[in-house]
Amino acid sequence: MLPSLSSQMIELAHQLADASAEVIRGYFRRKLIVDDKADASPVTIADRAAEQVMRELILQRFPTHGIYGEEMGVIASDAEFVWVLDPIDGTKSFITGKATFGTLIALLHHGQPVLGVINQPILQERWMGGTGLPATFNGETVTVRPCDNLRHALLYATSPEMFQGADRAAFERVRVATKHTLYGADCYAYALLSMGFVDLVIEASLSPYDYCALVPVIDSAGGILTDWVGQPLGLHSDGRVIAAGDRRVYEQARHCLL
Amino acid sequence: MLPSLSSQMIELAHQLADASAEVIRGYFRRKLIVDDKADASPVTIADRAAEQVMRELILQRFPTHGIYGEEMGVIASDAEFVWVLDPIDGTKSFITGKATFGTLIALLHHGQPVLGVINQPILQERWMGGTGLPATFNGETVTVRPCDNLRHALLYATSPEMFQGADRAAFERVRVATKHTLYGADCYAYALLSMGFVDLVIEASLSPYDYCALVPVIDSAGGILTDWVGQPLGLHSDGRVIAAGDRRVYEQARHCLL
Repeated sequence: MLPSLSSQMIELAHQLADASAEVIRGYFRRKLIVDDKADASPVTIADRAAEQVMRELILQRFPTHGIYGEEMGVIASDAEFVWVLDPIDGTKSFITGKATFGTLIALLHHGQPVLGVINQPILQERWMGGTGLPATFNGETVTVRPCDNLRHALLYATSPEMFQGADRAAFERVRVATKHTLYGADCYAYALLSMGFVDLVIEASLSPYDYCALVPVIDSAGGILTDWVGQPLGLHSDGRVIAAGDRRVYEQARHCLL
Repeated sequence: MLPSLSSQMIELAHQLADASAEVIRGYFRRKLIVDDKADASPVTIADRAAEQVMRELILQRFPTHGIYGEEMGVIASDAEFVWVLDPIDGTKSFITGKATFGTLIALLHHGQPVLGVINQPILQERWMGGTGLPATFNGETVTVRPCDNLRHALLYATSPEMFQGADRAAFERVRVATKHTLYGADCYAYALLSMGFVDLVIEASLSPYDYCALVPVIDSAGGILTDWVGQPLGLHSDGRVIAAGDRRVYEQARHCLL
């Protein structure tokens, strides 16, 4: 473990997941008002209340840490440690009653993701990874699986409409080269990749709160997660993401994306 | 209830769901051999074993009934009562460890679906409907929700690649007219529609075992489920399906499909 990543931080990450899950469970499959954000994506009281409870816990425990939340903005983004929060990644799934959304919790140290949690509140499933830590699913160590060739790979993307312009054609080149393509899973696809049931996830139009928490989970599980040109993901990435469990599939898929 | 739909048949439908679920749970998130069928879709021992246990229960209880199963073929298809079985609708989701697949159990009387079950073995969620029965979710009555206009509708389809030729453009016309489109849920999308969280499902390339069980569930919940030209679904439909919770959205979507 990094000296900078303390057991208190790991403990807080679990507390954030527990507290947000309790909030979210109270709103799942209820009749909710769904508001449109500026980008036309949906948001509900569940998103806002879950982020609020996490922000309060962080401020109580580590008042000098920064917070970058999807729904309630940024404070102290230049702090040594910054928590990046997406209370409900997959709000469209959430509002349709489908439990493949997740709460994403990342801790960044000098801008690099060092701890990540993917939490599914309804199914009570939690994936965690971090620098020097194993990837875990509900406390049990998980790893990616080998896949020797793109033509054997199972590929996920949330929606083909997330790819703009030439990115759509690039995605299509990968899609037709894989075994099967599945849609609609948001962060859940990366969680399944970390435990060896999915080989490849390719997405675009993501924001830092969508991918920062995924980095430590995939890294700790032995997988690869970068932008489309092979650079590590950080707060200033362009939102195009590729995750793979096996470097052979990663390289072949990136070749198709070029 | 139809005189022809006996409580013994309803009881058997529950037994089929219970027995197949027990089989399927034993294989979920295990390392399985995945075979390719003639149409390149995947199948596993879980599909076959779950269908086998259902076929045995039907033959024990109603030896004169017909059976039309996805994996093991047809017997006595001209019988007065025929059970139509899809042990795992959404095998791609199943093999990637995502619990949005379902076991589909339909009972046809003279070719018309009169009883339907959508069963999710991992989440232990069961939807049932039938002629003269309410739609239920784990025993509680559920209904569709109103939606006055297509532009407010939440639309599901398993994959845009299920639409062939001109059907793809037809689907796109509906998609751009809706509020949000989600992918990847197989039968689970219809189940969510029956309980009022989804407004519209449009699919194509379906087989009778994919849609026969959906008909009684959607009907009993107060929704509409037909082929794209408005005809009731039966064993000889062309596999293009539209389901809606509100007739206004149904009519507007069908207008876009023309």
